[in-house]
Amino acid sequence: MSDTYFPNVSPIAFEGADTDNPLAFAFYEADRVVAGRSMAEHFKFAVSYWHSFGQGGADPFGGPTQLRSWHEGGDAQSRARRKMDAAFEFFTKLGVPYYCFHDYDLVEEGATLAESNARLAEATAWAKEHQEDSGVKLLWGTANLFSNPRYMNGAATNPDFSVVARAGAQVKSAIDATIELGGENYVFWGGREGYISLLNTDMKREQEHMARFLGMARDYARAQGFKGCFFIEPKPMEPTKHQYDYDSATVVGFLERYGLANDFKLNLEVNHATLAGHSFEHELQVAADAGMLGSIDANRGDEQNGWDTDQFPINSFELTQAMMVILKAGGLAGGGVNFDAKLRRNSTSMDDLFIAHIAGMDAFAKALVAADRVLSSPDYQQILQQRYSSFDQNEGKAFEDGQLQLECLDELAQESPDLGRQSGKQERLEQIVWRELMRP
Amino acid sequence: MSDTYFPNVSPIAFEGADTDNPLAFAFYEADRVVAGRSMAEHFKFAVSYWHSFGQGGADPFGGPTQLRSWHEGGDAQSRARRKMDAAFEFFTKLGVPYYCFHDYDLVEEGATLAESNARLAEATAWAKEHQEDSGVKLLWGTANLFSNPRYMNGAATNPDFSVVARAGAQVKSAIDATIELGGENYVFWGGREGYISLLNTDMKREQEHMARFLGMARDYARAQGFKGCFFIEPKPMEPTKHQYDYDSATVVGFLERYGLANDFKLNLEVNHATLAGHSFEHELQVAADAGMLGSIDANRGDEQNGWDTDQFPINSFELTQAMMVILKAGGLAGGGVNFDAKLRRNSTSMDDLFIAHIAGMDAFAKALVAADRVLSSPDYQQILQQRYSSFDQNEGKAFEDGQLQLECLDELAQESPDLGRQSGKQERLEQIVWRELMRP
Amino acid sequence: MSDTYFPNVSPIAFEGADTDNPLAFAFYEADRVVAGRSMAEHFKFAVSYWHSFGQGGADPFGGPTQLRSWHEGGDAQSRARRKMDAAFEFFTKLGVPYYCFHDYDLVEEGATLAESNARLAEATAWAKEHQEDSGVKLLWGTANLFSNPRYMNGAATNPDFSVVARAGAQVKSAIDATIELGGENYVFWGGREGYISLLNTDMKREQEHMARFLGMARDYARAQGFKGCFFIEPKPMEPTKHQYDYDSATVVGFLERYGLANDFKLNLEVNHATLAGHSFEHELQVAADAGMLGSIDANRGDEQNGWDTDQFPINSFELTQAMMVILKAGGLAGGGVNFDAKLRRNSTSMDDLFIAHIAGMDAFAKALVAADRVLSSPDYQQILQQRYSSFDQNEGKAFEDGQLQLECLDELAQESPDLGRQSGKQERLEQIVWRELMRP
Amino acid sequence: MSDTYFPNVSPIAFEGADTDNPLAFAFYEADRVVAGRSMAEHFKFAVSYWHSFGQGGADPFGGPTQLRSWHEGGDAQSRARRKMDAAFEFFTKLGVPYYCFHDYDLVEEGATLAESNARLAEATAWAKEHQEDSGVKLLWGTANLFSNPRYMNGAATNPDFSVVARAGAQVKSAIDATIELGGENYVFWGGREGYISLLNTDMKREQEHMARFLGMARDYARAQGFKGCFFIEPKPMEPTKHQYDYDSATVVGFLERYGLANDFKLNLEVNHATLAGHSFEHELQVAADAGMLGSIDANRGDEQNGWDTDQFPINSFELTQAMMVILKAGGLAGGGVNFDAKLRRNSTSMDDLFIAHIAGMDAFAKALVAADRVLSSPDYQQILQQRYSSFDQNEGKAFEDGQLQLECLDELAQESPDLGRQSGKQERLEQIVWRELMRP
Repeated sequence: MSDTYFPNVSPIAFEGADTDNPLAFAFYEADRVVAGRSMAEHFKFAVSYWHSFGQGGADPFGGPTQLRSWHEGGDAQSRARRKMDAAFEFFTKLGVPYYCFHDYDLVEEGATLAESNARLAEATAWAKEHQEDSGVKLLWGTANLFSNPRYMNGAATNPDFSVVARAGAQVKSAIDATIELGGENYVFWGGREGYISLLNTDMKREQEHMARFLGMARDYARAQGFKGCFFIEPKPMEPTKHQYDYDSATVVGFLERYGLANDFKLNLEVNHATLAGHSFEHELQVAADAGMLGSIDANRGDEQNGWDTDQFPINSFELTQAMMVILKAGGLAGGGVNFDAKLRRNSTSMDDLFIAHIAGMDAFAKALVAADRVLSSPDYQQILQQRYSSFDQNEGKAFEDGQLQLECLDELAQESPDLGRQSGKQERLEQIVWRELMRP
Repeated sequence: MSDTYFPNVSPIAFEGADTDNPLAFAFYEADRVVAGRSMAEHFKFAVSYWHSFGQGGADPFGGPTQLRSWHEGGDAQSRARRKMDAAFEFFTKLGVPYYCFHDYDLVEEGATLAESNARLAEATAWAKEHQEDSGVKLLWGTANLFSNPRYMNGAATNPDFSVVARAGAQVKSAIDATIELGGENYVFWGGREGYISLLNTDMKREQEHMARFLGMARDYARAQGFKGCFFIEPKPMEPTKHQYDYDSATVVGFLERYGLANDFKLNLEVNHATLAGHSFEHELQVAADAGMLGSIDANRGDEQNGWDTDQFPINSFELTQAMMVILKAGGLAGGGVNFDAKLRRNSTSMDDLFIAHIAGMDAFAKALVAADRVLSSPDYQQILQQRYSSFDQNEGKAFEDGQLQLECLDELAQESPDLGRQSGKQERLEQIVWRELMRP
Repeated sequence: MSDTYFPNVSPIAFEGADTDNPLAFAFYEADRVVAGRSMAEHFKFAVSYWHSFGQGGADPFGGPTQLRSWHEGGDAQSRARRKMDAAFEFFTKLGVPYYCFHDYDLVEEGATLAESNARLAEATAWAKEHQEDSGVKLLWGTANLFSNPRYMNGAATNPDFSVVARAGAQVKSAIDATIELGGENYVFWGGREGYISLLNTDMKREQEHMARFLGMARDYARAQGFKGCFFIEPKPMEPTKHQYDYDSATVVGFLERYGLANDFKLNLEVNHATLAGHSFEHELQVAADAGMLGSIDANRGDEQNGWDTDQFPINSFELTQAMMVILKAGGLAGGGVNFDAKLRRNSTSMDDLFIAHIAGMDAFAKALVAADRVLSSPDYQQILQQRYSSFDQNEGKAFEDGQLQLECLDELAQESPDLGRQSGKQERLEQIVWRELMRP
Repeated sequence: MSDTYFPNVSPIAFEGADTDNPLAFAFYEADRVVAGRSMAEHFKFAVSYWHSFGQGGADPFGGPTQLRSWHEGGDAQSRARRKMDAAFEFFTKLGVPYYCFHDYDLVEEGATLAESNARLAEATAWAKEHQEDSGVKLLWGTANLFSNPRYMNGAATNPDFSVVARAGAQVKSAIDATIELGGENYVFWGGREGYISLLNTDMKREQEHMARFLGMARDYARAQGFKGCFFIEPKPMEPTKHQYDYDSATVVGFLERYGLANDFKLNLEVNHATLAGHSFEHELQVAADAGMLGSIDANRGDEQNGWDTDQFPINSFELTQAMMVILKAGGLAGGGVNFDAKLRRNSTSMDDLFIAHIAGMDAFAKALVAADRVLSSPDYQQILQQRYSSFDQNEGKAFEDGQLQLECLDELAQESPDLGRQSGKQERLEQIVWRELMRP
């Protein structure tokens, strides 16, 4: 294992709940079996290349604060190489099995498409070697179709076809790189696919273009032998005023409408749920109900701020409810838990990056254990089962099976006593969740 | 015309922009032709029975403030009769061609279903007579499936089947009344169809029940000869934490998934768009793009408050953008503009009710005229047409027609210059909208 | 102890973290000493009369769902008597040392002021007896100046003086009752003190009236020998569009401006902080910094809904951060922790009321223990101390002491190296909070 | 007048409401007298250097899209010189009498403080010459204390004193430049004065530092002979999670607490009001009531997005209500209307910059005329006067004058009839505002 970029950090070990060591896991034990699978298998934790090795704390009102040696000196490919070496040292020391990238995270975009492609091909070769050496794998790749000014009006939904074509070229290369690296999935995040003003937008035409574009990408990748999932990552807004992939329900409807439901699933992010006015567990449930719960981007927003803060996850009470949905759905379909989270702008120490990931992994681990306990709890099971039991038999079942007409309901109602006031037991269920979380 | 309840108000006349008379229209002229149709035809304005003749200003922290004689004295049907007389006097003096109701707006719910049905049947007969006398028509009817405590966990989505049956019985009677009164549409607003806590909810099962229920209602109404539209009214929350009919995109996806798209369209409300994080024109456009723009509930929320304030519409700048979408869609499919708006709690004068409607109708009228002018403006048309022109021919057209593969985009991109920075002209478009609104 | 209303519930006991009994405390031990005081002393838990014995689950779209025997039958004072008997049985079985009320929680408002006062005086006598029998005490009393329609435009800030006078009369009686019952504090919540529309409002004049009114109430109570604190409870909106007691900072400024700072402190509510766009701990800190942290109303809002949901508290991660502020401030000045929280509308079982309070008290207890541990943690202390150490000596201290001029800063800056990038260690601090909470 | 940067644009002329020319004023006539003063005097319109000549459309997810020749080529001072030439050409052609800047808008910050100061001094000399040539004046200057990474933890409130010193040095130079250019005011916007996490923050100590710092800056400027106003610009968040200058009420309280109320007033921004949960007119009214309504930053947010979009103002219905407050307050105290607004990222044409300002100025002009008409309207005046008339005489006046005790209110209430239900006439007032706006 390289020791160049984080020389003061040893591989992170599990030390248990009593540890005071910030650079140790208090709860996450990769091999601990919960609900029939190891924690490592449940989560498939991944580090995101962009937040952790990219921007460095810049925000709309100020430049980077986190000075990283790999951002400076040498030429573009030298910086890219050092960045990658640092990243794999970090992945290995942290002990995560996966990482994720955009094309222009691995390399800086060149002056021409050809130059960008050449850089990407070279970096792909480095990454392949690193993966083999370290055992770290690629959870998913994607293309950055939002940073370059050419995408200011969208990529696949750009009103100018030449930009759509350029986006297609970029996706082709990103898919090639993903396949070359054995990437298990490929993601689309449509940060500019939407509108800034409805006044100048033909929303229907743009959405048809998007469907067309996604289909073309899918066909290309399948033709190259790619067997993994495609994920759409919903987000309602920011940078664009309105983004077409607004939330789970919107994306599920879109995928079904355009015949993409067999190949595409959802990659859901906590902070994006918040921006869309949903709880994270709601978004998960909508995707699970549609059979499209693919992967998650772990982070959190700030409840008082209305923008995409991408903080590291820490609130295990909320995470427990999310893990309940994931466990009930049988786990994530193909994906994992990617830390699409960034250090606060003023968290400038190198060890902050380790601590943030460790705390996030611990928070998920504790939530998983609690979620499993809740789902196994007799009280929880009984409350849920009884609640819907009138549909398990007799007229309720006939209704569910489509064997009743409205007149039948009218007849049943004439005789039926006045019901409907059975307690929903919400406070009791919250008590169960809380207790299972707080139990050692 | 009766003169019992509003003796000091004469029929409202059009007096033009210079009027200082609060009880006159400054802009709304029923017969004025705009974009090929009269204002009356464009809007089909309707008064809502519940807000204007129901609650009387109560809010969660205090009781009614607007004392109406029809709320007091006599027995339930006497109150219902006087309420209806007052309502039709109001409709007639205001000069609106339509009204809308829930079953238990017309009458107070009785102790039993049978009693409620008997009351409703009697009131339906009165209403029929009033309609014939006045020429006022029923835009749509609906059933109140949210006020009675039995619906605390939902109506069609209640986990207790006996409540679902009761809801069905109520819908049957409301459909019967709507048909009897020549109602042009029938509406579903699922105020309790959703969840208070996901912890106790089987969301998928509940949504399947909802689809089943809607299909049964549709089948019943069609069997009775009803030819009108069914409308779903999206709302994201309140009273329920999360409502299944969240927004246009969610409902469109639901209707398509469950085979309801041929009979159901959307009834969109301004304030509900606000609560869902959308502009009203966005919600209209989503519905229009799906061919489901049926009707609107006119009101507005308060931008600083997060709940359903249902204020009367007044902001013509925003309404102009809404009317642009409606005009481009060819108008509302079957529905009209229903004032689902209530006086502020402290607007206790009887004339406030007239003024609020007058101001709202004027605001819509001015917006219609402005929207038509914008759509006819050469600058507006040129900006829009040019923006997407690269898809009208050559490779752009081939892309749109599905004749290109991803490799083709890659090839095109290799040669293409770096484009994509053509101005979206948002400020110019806003200037056009503003000028057309402010132009006399 | 009476056993009439909750015959199936025994006094709630502490059973420890392993309990599966919903009607037992898992963490709250009244006598357990933390940071030098018992849990009972830290919290002074109070039950609120209105939510727990009042409304019964009504919301703006539907009537009460929680049927309580004390709401029905008999005359007004019979209902009031039974309600009080039930309340004290509940207080006693739950084991809380305090309760809180509005005047018209104890009794139903009468047709005249005289009748209301007579009822209140009678109920006060009953309460006194109950208090003596049970040992339960009155944390604070208040007057309901928002439910009666006469207050639709405000109480102390009503534009009609006769309403101001009536409000004054009501406050006088509520103060009398509070004193009679040994109430430790008196609260003002100005739910209608604000505006619905700025267009009809003279904000400055109304605020001056409010200050005048508060001063008169204070003078009266002091003249009657009342030694307790007066509390203002900030809330930004709902029912009124804008309420003058918007948030901590606004109220502190108001109290200072009008010479009320010596007698008045703040009663802060979690859900009100949420509505104002603040975290609860922020509101606490602002009050603490002004020496005005008096009492808290414990509940929580729903992060996705914009209205006052008043759910029971459960999220110990957030409560830990609140308890840190309270502990650092030396505790609450005079007040306690009042459960201004209500059951969800569909929580209709009688045991739900116990469970909700138990879970809330446990959540606070766990948070207190964690907060004390964090504050005692060497890592926490060191990070905080070092962060501001440059102001503890030399020029930094001189600056703080007001001994430098701008020119001095300019001179110092000429020589100073470029600093300012020391990590804020936010993720580490969050890790500490989380670990201390999760530690058994 | 120079014609180098906008060769295709002639000086913008007033052409009246019928114009179709996007590069002409439809309503703004500098010399038209409204309410006793010319439009030019009412507004004192200013262009902001940063948005209009600075960033070029960058956002957190992508770089600049608006390519300006002055951003490229040459050395830093050459770019600064060309930028300034372009700016003054723009000011002159647009016909605005004022502009505003931050120190590092005029020049790029240098490697050292000395270099930055030298650049600033040189640019100040250029600006002085431009001002003399064009007659354009400086509405206010300020220092950018948020972009440089050294300010990541605040400037005046930084926990590291060396950063505070550096901020002081920068403010000194910015004050010097402002004085040299005859700037009429000096502004503080505390974009980083606040916290990212309360966990690592001593809020009270930081706020005391801020007060100290402001006092030092004031003392320095006064000693140099500066007679203008100091303005604080409230903003609740972004870039920082919580900013100390949260809203008008918070800042007024702060200024009063720390003895700064005589020299400091408020510079209020529309979009900042939105972020703080207030209407703009509310923020204006709070400042006006405290005698601190100094200046405004004209722009708007997006009602559906939670971040600082800084769009150009266009909604005259809202602006009319703002202008009503400003007119009633007797105008802005020392300041003017600064367009702190930026083109949308995809508005890349040079003429977009003119159009946006023209449309904004027209929107304000129309609002001013409407506001004046509303305030002069007999109906408006009568509603307001009558509403508070009970405090103009008798006991109401005695109450207002502090001559009543609580017992007197009690006595008055015993006799008083049940009042308080007089209509607030909100819908009528909105109708008046709307009509006066729509009237030609």
